[in-house]
Amino acid sequence: MNKIALGVCYEGTSWMGWQTQPHRRTVQDTLEQALLAFLGHQTPTICAGRTDTGVHAAMQVVHLETPLHRPEQAWVRGLNTMLPSSIGIRWAHAVDAGFHARFSAQSRTYVYRLLESPVRSPLWAGRTGWSFRPLDLAAMQEAASALVGRHDFSSFRSSQCQAATPVRELTRLDLERHGRFILITLQANAFLHHMVRNMVGALVYVGQGRQPPGWMAALLAERDRRRAAPTFAADGLTLTGVEYDPAFGLPEINVTDEVKYCY
Amino acid sequence: MNKIALGVCYEGTSWMGWQTQPHRRTVQDTLEQALLAFLGHQTPTICAGRTDTGVHAAMQVVHLETPLHRPEQAWVRGLNTMLPSSIGIRWAHAVDAGFHARFSAQSRTYVYRLLESPVRSPLWAGRTGWSFRPLDLAAMQEAASALVGRHDFSSFRSSQCQAATPVRELTRLDLERHGRFILITLQANAFLHHMVRNMVGALVYVGQGRQPPGWMAALLAERDRRRAAPTFAADGLTLTGVEYDPAFGLPEINVTDEVKYCY
Repeated sequence: MNKIALGVCYEGTSWMGWQTQPHRRTVQDTLEQALLAFLGHQTPTICAGRTDTGVHAAMQVVHLETPLHRPEQAWVRGLNTMLPSSIGIRWAHAVDAGFHARFSAQSRTYVYRLLESPVRSPLWAGRTGWSFRPLDLAAMQEAASALVGRHDFSSFRSSQCQAATPVRELTRLDLERHGRFILITLQANAFLHHMVRNMVGALVYVGQGRQPPGWMAALLAERDRRRAAPTFAADGLTLTGVEYDPAFGLPEINVTDEVKYCY
Repeated sequence: MNKIALGVCYEGTSWMGWQTQPHRRTVQDTLEQALLAFLGHQTPTICAGRTDTGVHAAMQVVHLETPLHRPEQAWVRGLNTMLPSSIGIRWAHAVDAGFHARFSAQSRTYVYRLLESPVRSPLWAGRTGWSFRPLDLAAMQEAASALVGRHDFSSFRSSQCQAATPVRELTRLDLERHGRFILITLQANAFLHHMVRNMVGALVYVGQGRQPPGWMAALLAERDRRRAAPTFAADGLTLTGVEYDPAFGLPEINVTDEVKYCY
């Protein structure tokens, strides 16, 4: 069998998340239907991070196995002609048997996009979180600093989270303002269910002045989800990358500029 | 009767353009249905620029008449609750009887967004033009300079154009690169049908090296649509503003940052 890794991009607005469902309105189901047409046989796919309904991916990593041989460019061109415009393949790469999209991943990077505007934006419907109140970026940055590092993130964990432990290492939490947009970049070894959206909800509380910056450290220490802010909208969330040992030789195609736009 | 001007924003991907149609899948039909619900009576709307299927508007200007009185903020909040997420009202302003959204407009500004990428981008599906070949911005800028000014734009006019004259004054044609995105800003007293998309198609030919920069001046001089490049996709085109005499007192809410993102 040949093991193939794919770099997959999708606009999540019209999909019920990554994970296969009986109604089949998911990215995984759609990708597996395209693979069936392309390969002529069914093959299950494994992804690095199962994104929720409405969450986007600039670079999801997926692996699958097949007895067939195809040139790497044929995977990209062939699958892209069989996929709808909201899902695309960025690259394909033959990997050795030891590679696993989920278990080999060293870290995941997400970007959360927030728009500060008195009215909702039709141009960004489904693709940005929204605060109709002004946001104090300095206060948000001060609060964010309490979250970086290895912590028990129970305060930001959904009640449906199935992870064995609530301990994660958050290696990056950067906030940048560009006009009325705030971009929040987060990197961790892995994320708990709803962890990013729950942290963003808490950061927005601080940004709107509903809580002081010091509240974040106290919230983290409480390890109690009921103390935190509501889960923020899926709309603004994009998985922008999954990091692996360079020995696997995966293509390093950076598409973050499509999320951050003009950097 | 009271005359009201509205600043209207829409994501055009899911709409069959501005102009009312029997099937009613247009922005105008949807806005007039919301107005009927909000006012309790039917009222026709007039817009500054009738956008085609798939074209977006960050700031379209519309006027209508009603015997009813409503506070300006009530128009914004009330209509926004009745409109789908891809259409929104940015402002409402009472105008005097002499105002006409189309005939009072002094100029229109559009931004065309182009993505240079070997593969299509699901994150920008429906919202960007796409060139899979690299684009030479300097060559495009040189070609663009031939278009600025008062000219007969017959070479860039659709065969369905109903304008009385092909002469227009193009006051601005700026190109900027931001990573793999190229943003083209165009301002004119008015535009012929498909004029922006036809000019973008010709600029892309020059950017891809299929024609030299000097071809643009020759093309303009020929006044023959058959000599030009194909019409470029509607996807990348956004009406970003309509300019009026300041005496009308329309709100100057600039939402160009939602099109250009992080400027």
